[in-house]
Amino acid sequence: MITSNLSELVIPIKAELSCFDEKFKKSMKSKVGIVELVTRFILHQKGKKIRPILVLLSAKICGEINERTYRGATLVELLHTATLVHDDVVDNAEQRRGFPSINAIWKNKIAVLMGDYLLSRGLMQAVEGEDYDFLRTITSTVKRMAEGELLQTSKTRKLNIDEPTYYKIISDKTASLLSTCCEIGARSILDNEDKIIAMRDYGEFLGVAFQIKDDILDYVGKSSIIGKPLGGDIKEKKITLPLIYALKQVERPESQRIIKIIKSGADSKKVNEIIEFVVNQKGIEYAEKMAAEYAAKAKECLSIFSESESKSALTSLVDFVVERKN
Amino acid sequence: MITSNLSELVIPIKAELSCFDEKFKKSMKSKVGIVELVTRFILHQKGKKIRPILVLLSAKICGEINERTYRGATLVELLHTATLVHDDVVDNAEQRRGFPSINAIWKNKIAVLMGDYLLSRGLMQAVEGEDYDFLRTITSTVKRMAEGELLQTSKTRKLNIDEPTYYKIISDKTASLLSTCCEIGARSILDNEDKIIAMRDYGEFLGVAFQIKDDILDYVGKSSIIGKPLGGDIKEKKITLPLIYALKQVERPESQRIIKIIKSGADSKKVNEIIEFVVNQKGIEYAEKMAAEYAAKAKECLSIFSESESKSALTSLVDFVVERKN
Repeated sequence: MITSNLSELVIPIKAELSCFDEKFKKSMKSKVGIVELVTRFILHQKGKKIRPILVLLSAKICGEINERTYRGATLVELLHTATLVHDDVVDNAEQRRGFPSINAIWKNKIAVLMGDYLLSRGLMQAVEGEDYDFLRTITSTVKRMAEGELLQTSKTRKLNIDEPTYYKIISDKTASLLSTCCEIGARSILDNEDKIIAMRDYGEFLGVAFQIKDDILDYVGKSSIIGKPLGGDIKEKKITLPLIYALKQVERPESQRIIKIIKSGADSKKVNEIIEFVVNQKGIEYAEKMAAEYAAKAKECLSIFSESESKSALTSLVDFVVERKN
Repeated sequence: MITSNLSELVIPIKAELSCFDEKFKKSMKSKVGIVELVTRFILHQKGKKIRPILVLLSAKICGEINERTYRGATLVELLHTATLVHDDVVDNAEQRRGFPSINAIWKNKIAVLMGDYLLSRGLMQAVEGEDYDFLRTITSTVKRMAEGELLQTSKTRKLNIDEPTYYKIISDKTASLLSTCCEIGARSILDNEDKIIAMRDYGEFLGVAFQIKDDILDYVGKSSIIGKPLGGDIKEKKITLPLIYALKQVERPESQRIIKIIKSGADSKKVNEIIEFVVNQKGIEYAEKMAAEYAAKAKECLSIFSESESKSALTSLVDFVVERKN
């Protein structure tokens, strides 16, 4: 199986994706100078656009993309951007190991406000388009995402995450939005609940696979590509699937010893020791197996749809997610 | 004129306010432990509940309070709580003069997420109640509030705020939500646009008067009551109406000298010097005059309504806002 390239996957929606880009740029316009400045900065750091791509493909597998689809794509991308901006509040602080500069604090203030601004812009567009079912889905997603992150934060403090809790966290914080993208895309075209639910489930399974893979890459990714060192989760005391599995393979004194190292704040040498421990205990293999299982479930959801370019793209997207190297 | 006491003002809606308290508590429930913990903490620090009081009084001046009114009151209080929680991100940092502890950073993370959570909870309730006109109003208010704060933040950096910019900022960041409260309250009862607009304008003028008074109290409030020292705005380099006016009364070298002191970060002695400068240049008197003008405009808006207990309460609320000592 050849790992798909994201730019190949979007061929069925190439024209629509440029159309989205234009609409998205427009949706961020503001008369307030600093808002324009920050949004230009955000637009400059183009992301992979996985979420709008999901909306567009999930729509196209159901029929022809329309204005509602674009509004949905804009809404999820605004929402995703808002959460990224809010994430910066935390990430900035961590990069500086607990001592942000005054400059970093200004960024905090701006990051919080810009996140609120982008979120409300997205919701306003849904309200103006009278896309009330989108609104229902999206507000409950925002709530799930915040709850997921809060659960992870509190569990991180106690370092007591088991496998079911792990799935609950990643389902809330990551899969919920991808699932919403697919649901919104399908719903923008049709009201066949079977197909809408199939797409929603596809997004959920894809999202879980995506996050497991993300967590694997934190252990064995190519650090030069992602631009950050391996073991970031260990340093941040985040217990993810590879470690959860590895800890269960050893006797209690050994697992307690590992947890103690993480708790006290592991330095680079200790981080490498823990990565080695996880690899030796087959934590990576197990997590890869689970990611593959969720990937297979995601593909199964598509069986309800007849063959099309969009269906092939959505199938390949699953492979892309679990086979990517960064 | 006797300064009204807030507890007297709420007599016309006493029963409804307890009913609101119950509903609000319920609206914050969560299965996630840390969310429960933080919300209990928030519920414990009971605020003045100005916003739900405004919703309830604005409804009662129009007719009998109903379920829609309560949903509106809950929505605005959730939203207000969300913004307070987000404000903590900034305030915490400032208290520690640019060096928050690791503990303070954890709070940042939780504050950002809890704010997002509360905001989405509020919006979800509006979606579930199918109160789409509330949603339209509230999402545009969230956007205005964020824009107002962002404008203030960027202007603060440059210290170049004139009077029109000041009104734009306080209208967006403070008056917009109070105006929304009154609009939502009226709209929950009737669809007479004249009365709805009268209540919306009442809220807007009240909000501007409220913020001017807040800014005055930062110069001449009783610090022992508010629990924070005077001149906080000067330390945070926020230029508000008393100072804007005072700076305009003196020659450029003198105003440049004052701005330079603020820019370089005033210590307590310098803060007192600037407070004295503002008082001597009659900045407080001017701001009091402007607050009184907006207060009068707010009262005028009520002339469309016939006499009632609620109308008297809304009139006294204006006096309360401009005459309060903290």
